[in-house]
Amino acid sequence: MTYILHYAPDNASLIIRAALELRGLPYRTQLVDRRSKEQMSPAYRALNPNGLIPVLETPQGPMFETGAILLWLADTHGGLGPAPESSARADFLKWLFFISNTIHPALRMMFYPAKYIADDHIAALRAGLADTLHQSFTTLDQAAAGNPALFAGASPTVLELYAAALLRWSAIYPAEHDKTWFSLANYPALQRICLRLETLPVIECLQITEGLGTHPFSDPQFPTPPIGSAT
Amino acid sequence: MTYILHYAPDNASLIIRAALELRGLPYRTQLVDRRSKEQMSPAYRALNPNGLIPVLETPQGPMFETGAILLWLADTHGGLGPAPESSARADFLKWLFFISNTIHPALRMMFYPAKYIADDHIAALRAGLADTLHQSFTTLDQAAAGNPALFAGASPTVLELYAAALLRWSAIYPAEHDKTWFSLANYPALQRICLRLETLPVIECLQITEGLGTHPFSDPQFPTPPIGSAT
Repeated sequence: MTYILHYAPDNASLIIRAALELRGLPYRTQLVDRRSKEQMSPAYRALNPNGLIPVLETPQGPMFETGAILLWLADTHGGLGPAPESSARADFLKWLFFISNTIHPALRMMFYPAKYIADDHIAALRAGLADTLHQSFTTLDQAAAGNPALFAGASPTVLELYAAALLRWSAIYPAEHDKTWFSLANYPALQRICLRLETLPVIECLQITEGLGTHPFSDPQFPTPPIGSAT
Repeated sequence: MTYILHYAPDNASLIIRAALELRGLPYRTQLVDRRSKEQMSPAYRALNPNGLIPVLETPQGPMFETGAILLWLADTHGGLGPAPESSARADFLKWLFFISNTIHPALRMMFYPAKYIADDHIAALRAGLADTLHQSFTTLDQAAAGNPALFAGASPTVLELYAAALLRWSAIYPAEHDKTWFSLANYPALQRICLRLETLPVIECLQITEGLGTHPFSDPQFPTPPIGSAT
């Protein structure tokens, strides 16, 4: 079966696209037009009641939650992380959940703070989030340095794809906001992950379809997608 | 092998304890003394660099992240949720990640806002979180009502254990703060989960070891644990 990936350029869907490409799985894409807030339409919310991107349509129905989709793809097709019976499974799951429930939600709040707090408190929230994100990336960097099988093995795991996208966004979003809290060089093991991903053929697809530029993870720029809008 | 659960009463460790008890798995507990901030000690941080409770020591090393431990136990021992090859796996994973990365982090911010924002912005943050939590519980309630196999099957899944604990905490924490935003009756399918769990023998262990009282999920009260401190 051909998967259907509901995506917007440079949204979390790019992590799923990278996994599908890396594993050579058949899929087609369906643009979610963020300019018209299509992600809040009844049709889209029938796929994901939270109105968030991505959704992946699978033989088991529509899936959402980036971490869940990555894990499901890894377990269904192999080659993207340790299998359920692997002795590396515990480490794999704990870092996948850490990325998903600590780093990713903090970034979502950084990018869309008005969903969480009144306008005159946004600067204070972002300052606090910058501190916690730096701490979380530092922790993940140490984990990556200490777990080469999970973060620097023969083929990238979904942990690497997920981390690289979050690092990209930290460097460039939100457009209008100070981002000096972030520097990839502070996280050398994560930086190596970004640089390695950029040597893989899979990157070309992201560059063409989502306009991610020459160094999408190690030196990211605002995207210039051929269609659709990132925000 | 006997698992070792590093716990504090009424902390997220109670979800892991409930899963271990429900499945009849051998484990012993190691109290983390929150009064002396033992979770920030070098010894504990060697198990979990984030200094969060729980940690479960397994043959694959120390695990942290509640959702990761629950999934690992479910896959390792069965009986706590759909197996990797099950056709219900996609739904199971998407709701497990949703609980873990949307509801759980929002509650952590509600309970420990000073970790995320300066003091004079805490009330504003809590007001925003109350709105997003109500929305998230509403979404989860609808999912539970529509997925009896995952949320009301013959034996509880880890989704039910996880949700029940988060509902409990929403009703009683933080001690000093207004909690009128929350009423379990607003979420009838989740309320049924809470009531059903309270009919199971596993509850007695939580009542004895963590002092959770007569109706720990449907009508929770502050815990009166025999040893240790919840906060």
